[in-house]
Amino acid sequence: MKYVIIGGVAGGASAAARLKRLNEDAEIVLFEKGEYISYANCGLPYYIGNTIEDRKKLFLQTPVSFGNRYDADVRTLNEVTAINRDRKTVSVKNLRNGKEYEEDYDILLLSPGAEPVKPHVQGIDLPNIFTLRNVADCDKIKMQAIDNLTDNAAAVVIGGGFIGLEMAENLRKIGYQVTVVEKADHVLTPLDWPMAAIVQQHLVDKGVNVITGNGLSCFKDHDGQLAVVLEDNTVLPCNLAILSIGVRPNTTLAKACGLKIGEAGGIWVNEYLQTSDECIFAVGDAIEYPHPVTGKPYCNFLAGPANLQARTAAMNMVYPQSVQYQGSVSTAIAKIFDLTAACTGLSENTLRKLGMTYQTVITHPAPHATYYPGGQPIHLKLNFDPENGRILGAQAVGTQNVDKQIDVISLLLKHQGTIFDLVNSEHAYAPPYGSAKSPVMFAGMVAENIYAHLMNPIQAAELDEIIDRNEDFNLIDVREIQEFKTGTIQGAVNYPVDELREFLEDIPQDKKTIVFCEVGLRGYVASRILMQSGFNTVYNLIGGMKTYRLVGKHNQ
Amino acid sequence: MKYVIIGGVAGGASAAARLKRLNEDAEIVLFEKGEYISYANCGLPYYIGNTIEDRKKLFLQTPVSFGNRYDADVRTLNEVTAINRDRKTVSVKNLRNGKEYEEDYDILLLSPGAEPVKPHVQGIDLPNIFTLRNVADCDKIKMQAIDNLTDNAAAVVIGGGFIGLEMAENLRKIGYQVTVVEKADHVLTPLDWPMAAIVQQHLVDKGVNVITGNGLSCFKDHDGQLAVVLEDNTVLPCNLAILSIGVRPNTTLAKACGLKIGEAGGIWVNEYLQTSDECIFAVGDAIEYPHPVTGKPYCNFLAGPANLQARTAAMNMVYPQSVQYQGSVSTAIAKIFDLTAACTGLSENTLRKLGMTYQTVITHPAPHATYYPGGQPIHLKLNFDPENGRILGAQAVGTQNVDKQIDVISLLLKHQGTIFDLVNSEHAYAPPYGSAKSPVMFAGMVAENIYAHLMNPIQAAELDEIIDRNEDFNLIDVREIQEFKTGTIQGAVNYPVDELREFLEDIPQDKKTIVFCEVGLRGYVASRILMQSGFNTVYNLIGGMKTYRLVGKHNQ
Repeated sequence: MKYVIIGGVAGGASAAARLKRLNEDAEIVLFEKGEYISYANCGLPYYIGNTIEDRKKLFLQTPVSFGNRYDADVRTLNEVTAINRDRKTVSVKNLRNGKEYEEDYDILLLSPGAEPVKPHVQGIDLPNIFTLRNVADCDKIKMQAIDNLTDNAAAVVIGGGFIGLEMAENLRKIGYQVTVVEKADHVLTPLDWPMAAIVQQHLVDKGVNVITGNGLSCFKDHDGQLAVVLEDNTVLPCNLAILSIGVRPNTTLAKACGLKIGEAGGIWVNEYLQTSDECIFAVGDAIEYPHPVTGKPYCNFLAGPANLQARTAAMNMVYPQSVQYQGSVSTAIAKIFDLTAACTGLSENTLRKLGMTYQTVITHPAPHATYYPGGQPIHLKLNFDPENGRILGAQAVGTQNVDKQIDVISLLLKHQGTIFDLVNSEHAYAPPYGSAKSPVMFAGMVAENIYAHLMNPIQAAELDEIIDRNEDFNLIDVREIQEFKTGTIQGAVNYPVDELREFLEDIPQDKKTIVFCEVGLRGYVASRILMQSGFNTVYNLIGGMKTYRLVGKHNQ
Repeated sequence: MKYVIIGGVAGGASAAARLKRLNEDAEIVLFEKGEYISYANCGLPYYIGNTIEDRKKLFLQTPVSFGNRYDADVRTLNEVTAINRDRKTVSVKNLRNGKEYEEDYDILLLSPGAEPVKPHVQGIDLPNIFTLRNVADCDKIKMQAIDNLTDNAAAVVIGGGFIGLEMAENLRKIGYQVTVVEKADHVLTPLDWPMAAIVQQHLVDKGVNVITGNGLSCFKDHDGQLAVVLEDNTVLPCNLAILSIGVRPNTTLAKACGLKIGEAGGIWVNEYLQTSDECIFAVGDAIEYPHPVTGKPYCNFLAGPANLQARTAAMNMVYPQSVQYQGSVSTAIAKIFDLTAACTGLSENTLRKLGMTYQTVITHPAPHATYYPGGQPIHLKLNFDPENGRILGAQAVGTQNVDKQIDVISLLLKHQGTIFDLVNSEHAYAPPYGSAKSPVMFAGMVAENIYAHLMNPIQAAELDEIIDRNEDFNLIDVREIQEFKTGTIQGAVNYPVDELREFLEDIPQDKKTIVFCEVGLRGYVASRILMQSGFNTVYNLIGGMKTYRLVGKHNQ
């Protein structure tokens, strides 16, 4: 059986290795238009920032070592220019000598990846504008970054997504003044505002200039230097601009040979990762696949799922229709200076767009036992369906143990897990690693209280709307008086929770009552006291002052 | 409704708080025979070691603050001496004034915890022998540890379990020469030998004297100093001895009033955490409950499950039989100097004792992308059922990200998860946090290869037996020649995997063939080449040289 693979990075190389292990007699030809295969593209920003010092570390395999180990015919700098489905061949151009030829296949695997979006704006072809997708891009950026590095060297990163922020950190690390430009109203749009607000503040704290709600207009020459011009005509002169406004599935070959392209713009595949041509499989950033939570196809551009797809496709290429791919819930993470920001499943923003019913919990648990030194709170947001308790998504930001929380929720999301599963989860607990109630368990408990109508949640934005409408309601800060004095929400009165029972008669029962504390726990206790003492519309502010300080409009 | 709770630490205090939140009209009386409630008993070793400097941090609540917040009648230094089920009262002795009285209840909750095992050996009542279970114990140890600290002060920790090793680290940290004595053949018996070997070596590297396979015989006075005498008559003079040989459920009250005690020696409870008396609930270290994997009852002595039990019991005490407890898979963790050791589910040792069918995978994955600086390998052991792929247990040892792997597997264990679920798991990946294939995903893939008969595993001990029997077989080291030269297994010949195909005719096909590499991956590739080239009994050494070096007998 002759297998031809297009693309030698994550998906293609993994599939080739698995194919050979499954079938020693497999004849494998691997085409890669670039110079390298199986390299660490997620590591490229860290090479630019000198965190990874040795360029050789980026290469997990060379074409020769890979070819030897897996007895595969690896052809780098050979670009596949067409797929000829009628005669089961691919047309190839050898970029070393310009020669063109055809190669036949029994089974073809497409792993062409994604390509950076380059907007058609004025000046896009000026020098010192880069995208980062492969080793060649990386080498160019690294060389220019070093050459351009002067005392006041400035870099502009256009796009504040995961990769954009990694680039911002790494350029800052090597000495650049960095500006991040984001068209949306906050950076890191896979996260919602309360979570993204923490990241954004941290960027500012680390000396990054952050511009949001303002997109790229064009590039221009500014006294011999490159300048980025924004939609509001702000001009940002810089030595270096990184375009990181997203990627799109590379579907050129697939489209040209008539393979089905799905509604999200990726190559359509079935559960065996077969395209609309049963002899052609596809994996990685070029495909779309239904999201396990929404059932709707989307493109995820993630390395973990690409690797799993490669393994799955290889199995099905040797043993037809033997293993089903289960989709990705879009779990992602980035280090942003001292912070970790991660997410899984659906954001509130996405849920709203999809018109799905959801409820949100925000907690600020310690990353380990509060009495054990050194912990900074994790900010954890959990979205769930209040009708059946199903988990819909989660986001977390913090300095420690953020990844652990998201991995656990990610696993539950893939299994249609519920908030009850979070409550019943079991974790490895000792004081340096966690608390007896883990952050996800705790978030599950809060969610369960909402589900069971033990607590009525109110979000910071909803509270602000009520204040803006000048509604007549009780707003009670149940923290200690010392905490109250350091700042509260406009209009709040202070009844510390431990004394609340004594003052019940002072609070009008006939009005809506909203309580809050620092993170939400004392507010919950207070809301239980009130709800059971004749107050029938009592709300607890989700995330307490810690969230409100970040996103509320009426701090005082 | 009047609720009486016996025991004010983890389980009792959590239940009281939840009870009140569920039912503001609940009348709650909380009895605690000690001076403190709701304290951090998992933090006690760290207070002794000065990691937690401020003693106040150990107290999450005082009796007064707790009483105020939850409108509960908290009676510390009041010991319940009997439960009078016939008249639904408890007999109480006020330890402050010696007065005895009865208190009636509608619903009773038992949370008496566990008590340290104190063997009836000679000299057990000599001074400077301590157990660590509560704040009073901790204060005594701390005072003696400081008073006894001289230049060559020595401490003996009897029992090398999680708490014993935490104590060893903390006593070492404040300046003691520490000896750990363990009757079993290795420390940390919830882990099997290959994993425990790493911990044991680390203890030695940190200057701890480790004695295994040798139990406590007695204590004696040795020239005016305490000495620990072992079964082989070794005499260990010391300034301080910590007895940490285990705990047993405190069932005194339960037994005396005729409540059912289960086969594991804990208080029997049903799925609603009701004892054999429907008006009496029990939670925490004093109960036993069926293990979700084996179905057999056991006592787990873990804080996380105790907290969840408290929440569950409180629900059922207010809303009868509303929530079922799902049991604990015995997930535990400890920091041991620079290492983290953790486990979940069943060890190989336990599986063997229970006569269960299992297969074992040992891997040594990097904690994050190999090209990202600073990672030390995680040593991960996965036990699974080779007939259906069900996960049975896991253990991990390493310096980073150990807890994350165990938490994910723990969650799957609670849901009857399989190795296929591990393969299909999705994790938050960026180079500082992991690899595209996570450690658990990777272990799942190895297990899946065994399940699918793509690879035949052989464990280090099995290989040693074959060598000991002088069997005639092929033993092939498939690493590079430079690696082979640094040390291999007795009798091994070297065919690097990338050249193996050229030498197939040099290897006798009619013999059993065992291959190995450094961690197992190249061995797998080699075994696939051989299995598909006419060699029909080919085995790959699980965990490779990295495991064999730790536990193998024929290193050369």
